[in-house]
Amino acid sequence: MLDMGTLSVGQYNFVGNAFSFGLAVMAATTIFLWLMRNEVAPAYRMAITITGLVTAVAAYHYLQIMMSWNAAVDISSGAVVSTGEPFNQAYRYVDWLLTVPLLLVELILVMKLTQSETWRKSLTLGGAAALMIILGYPGEVAESLGPRFIFWILSMIPFLYILYQLVIGLKDSISKQPENVQQLIKVAIYLVVASWAFYPIVYLFPAIGLTGGAAVTAVEVGYTVADIVAKAVFGLLIFMIAVRKSEHETGKASTAAKKS
Amino acid sequence: MLDMGTLSVGQYNFVGNAFSFGLAVMAATTIFLWLMRNEVAPAYRMAITITGLVTAVAAYHYLQIMMSWNAAVDISSGAVVSTGEPFNQAYRYVDWLLTVPLLLVELILVMKLTQSETWRKSLTLGGAAALMIILGYPGEVAESLGPRFIFWILSMIPFLYILYQLVIGLKDSISKQPENVQQLIKVAIYLVVASWAFYPIVYLFPAIGLTGGAAVTAVEVGYTVADIVAKAVFGLLIFMIAVRKSEHETGKASTAAKKS
Repeated sequence: MLDMGTLSVGQYNFVGNAFSFGLAVMAATTIFLWLMRNEVAPAYRMAITITGLVTAVAAYHYLQIMMSWNAAVDISSGAVVSTGEPFNQAYRYVDWLLTVPLLLVELILVMKLTQSETWRKSLTLGGAAALMIILGYPGEVAESLGPRFIFWILSMIPFLYILYQLVIGLKDSISKQPENVQQLIKVAIYLVVASWAFYPIVYLFPAIGLTGGAAVTAVEVGYTVADIVAKAVFGLLIFMIAVRKSEHETGKASTAAKKS
Repeated sequence: MLDMGTLSVGQYNFVGNAFSFGLAVMAATTIFLWLMRNEVAPAYRMAITITGLVTAVAAYHYLQIMMSWNAAVDISSGAVVSTGEPFNQAYRYVDWLLTVPLLLVELILVMKLTQSETWRKSLTLGGAAALMIILGYPGEVAESLGPRFIFWILSMIPFLYILYQLVIGLKDSISKQPENVQQLIKVAIYLVVASWAFYPIVYLFPAIGLTGGAAVTAVEVGYTVADIVAKAVFGLLIFMIAVRKSEHETGKASTAAKKS
């Protein structure tokens, strides 16, 4: 449990503003994706729908996180005073349990692999992602540092498996994509790898003695930035990939029509 | 009535997080189904619309359950203190009374039986499901264990009738489905049978002396998981069946068009 009393009023407000920013970005991305989904070819509409679902679920959780943050604290004569109601950090896990598997499913769907490959990769990557989050939770809510280390290590196993699958396992499938999207897909994967790397590092902060107001501020703002990159920026890349692939395929279709 | 004071803060928060997760899953599934409903053939759009209604009604009730859970307790100096307002378990029954008959209707609609069979099966299965929930309610809210047992037994009669109808009564209709969906329909039925089996077992927990914080946590998280499987996962299977049947029929239609 966070000791909210160690936060300065400035730090407390800064984190609250970051949460509100996160909510606005996620909600705006959702609306953009859902309004634009009919502009891509039918084959990519499920990918775009799910991409918007991920940011919608994240928007909901940022609302919950923001409300929990507000309920945990009273500001009284220029100081942050804990109300006794704990700030619920676990909302992040509830969010990730749903959104992280779906993020990988978006990427797989927009690649339009064969039906059996889509299933296989969605199940293995999505399952590994869910396992990673479930294994992280007991360490996050544990009162002592021992379990935090143990569950960090356990959670890293599916994490590394996912990274391996993304960077190495998808190589063949990427090489079969149209040339003008290969680069975009690689950028999307690097974005996942880079933004995800933030989470296991932050997870260890309390274990290495980083506590107090500055650490809480860094963790919460850092998570918010990482979430925005991993969900909203990543989602917009998925949308761009779907648009280019739609153009590519319509182009081929109309060339074929002209030839016949 | 639950004695909320027997819960630890960790248990209380875990259940609250499970409710929030349930709400997010149900709402996300609803949006997915309603956004994707035009991607299936017109014959299956009613099934998909109703599938989304089931998860929408469930999302509403998880919001109510979550708010009731929050209102029942104050967390004060690290302990769970009952506010005196009881946690309203009856919301689950209100939800089931509407969603459980509709779940069976989804399954019947996606099978696209003859009009008279669709009517007959919807009325008998839907009616039995409503009866099952109505008979369960007096036992759930009863203060003593006698009525709990009696209404459990009464409620099991329509429950077993439904299971029989699903596993045996639908056999003929399943064998008439396209080959590539027969397996999916069977999985959907097994999912119903397996997830529904959880409810009558949990119903008996108080009767066999399972009370206290751990039992409450197990019951509430268990119901939530069973609801997610029976409504959201089941709903996505119904969607997949509708997609495959649409493809199958469009395939047949274009083959027929070529022949003529």
